Amino acid sequence: MKKPTWVVAKEQAKRAAAAETIWLFGIHAVRDALENPNRTKLRLVVTRNAMGRLEDAIAASGMEPEMVEPRKFDVPIDPQSVHQGAALEVKPLDWGPVNEICLGDGDIPPRVILLDRVTDPHNVGAILRSAEVFGARAVIGVKRHSAPETGALAKTASGALERQPYLRIRNLADTMEELRALGYIILGLAGEAEQTIEQVLDGKKDRPVALVLGAEGPGLREKTRETCDALVKIDFAGAFGSLNVSNAAAIALYASTGR
Amino acid sequence: MKKPTWVVAKEQAKRAAAAETIWLFGIHAVRDALENPNRTKLRLVVTRNAMGRLEDAIAASGMEPEMVEPRKFDVPIDPQSVHQGAALEVKPLDWGPVNEICLGDGDIPPRVILLDRVTDPHNVGAILRSAEVFGARAVIGVKRHSAPETGALAKTASGALERQPYLRIRNLADTMEELRALGYIILGLAGEAEQTIEQVLDGKKDRPVALVLGAEGPGLREKTRETCDALVKIDFAGAFGSLNVSNAAAIALYASTGR
Repeated sequence: MKKPTWVVAKEQAKRAAAAETIWLFGIHAVRDALENPNRTKLRLVVTRNAMGRLEDAIAASGMEPEMVEPRKFDVPIDPQSVHQGAALEVKPLDWGPVNEICLGDGDIPPRVILLDRVTDPHNVGAILRSAEVFGARAVIGVKRHSAPETGALAKTASGALERQPYLRIRNLADTMEELRALGYIILGLAGEAEQTIEQVLDGKKDRPVALVLGAEGPGLREKTRETCDALVKIDFAGAFGSLNVSNAAAIALYASTGR
Repeated sequence: MKKPTWVVAKEQAKRAAAAETIWLFGIHAVRDALENPNRTKLRLVVTRNAMGRLEDAIAASGMEPEMVEPRKFDVPIDPQSVHQGAALEVKPLDWGPVNEICLGDGDIPPRVILLDRVTDPHNVGAILRSAEVFGARAVIGVKRHSAPETGALAKTASGALERQPYLRIRNLADTMEELRALGYIILGLAGEAEQTIEQVLDGKKDRPVALVLGAEGPGLREKTRETCDALVKIDFAGAFGSLNVSNAAAIALYASTGR
């Protein structure tokens, strides 16, 4: 027997609402989220021990923690997760539109990282950390093919998820055009490129720069390549092997930064 | 009742021998190891499907694979491991002594990465990849506090474990002195350092350079700091957050490379 329409609709709404929340876990990630005034917090589940460690952050957040026994730590996260007795259900952060967050403010030349289907949360988490260190405006992925904000991503990002804008947009080529309209030079990283980042940006490091990286293996999609101003490579000493995507992003940010 | 001495001795020898072998897994890691003539290979366990994918490498290696059903893939690796139906028991690689592998050969100025208690296999695996890309002579860790050669490390290293020397030595300070005797400038990465890598190496990029990185959090040990020629930082645009250790290693290699 088919389910009645209203049951289906209710289930869909429930799934959609569920998809809209994230369970962060681990002392570090939970503390950073508790201390982030822009983060909508829903439920905090802690052991007695974790509550002690998070005391100040919990007090400052005004949340009522749900205390549980370590053996009854029952929240919807991967059972392999190292939660350290702390989990916090939150809403994804809303960083606002690309053309506001990526606007230059006259301080340091803006940098943006664009990810073309990089889905591994550990790589994206590490990229968020590097982006924060180098003061990048945003890390931008494609909504349907990017790492969602998850506990694993938050943990690898080691706090950066709360502070570093991470936007997931509908169409990468459209966003590249938007950035171009804001004055960005758009560079796609490709191993077979002939020019290095340093060569292409020689004398232009005061310009806004967007660096586009693809997933390891497939690299940049054809449409993405075509929409770049130039394809660039990282200046290597050797010619063997390939960089992990987060290492490539870190070097690209470093190489594009004015010195 | 106490076990007889000979039983204890036999058990110890068995454990020692067991500790001397590694199970590599995953098509990529197994293929690279099969194709590495310097790798001592002991047992190859494959499913029919994996055997098809590894056909050429198996033939070239001359090994007799043990074929198993996918459901009976019973090798001593973490059950969470993505083995893709292929596992290979091997001996660790012997890269020879530090003072041979790190000797300059007049081609490109030698670079070496030293790891002060960096134990996470994913970070070490990513560092091996970057080291290979930048042509570093070796990645060197401390025997008792480093990531052992394991299947997880091999998988993250994405083939680099077979090609990039990874040495685990007894005492880091002694090895630093050995490298100094070979003409290396030894730079320790420390966030609070006042000079950048570029500043310290200005005009000296043709010299051999060793870059020392500590674990995230504790950083370099006191003795390690004292044994460095200089402490250096990575030139940041911003002042927030911290880099993941493999990203710091990648940027340090890039920044130390002559351009």
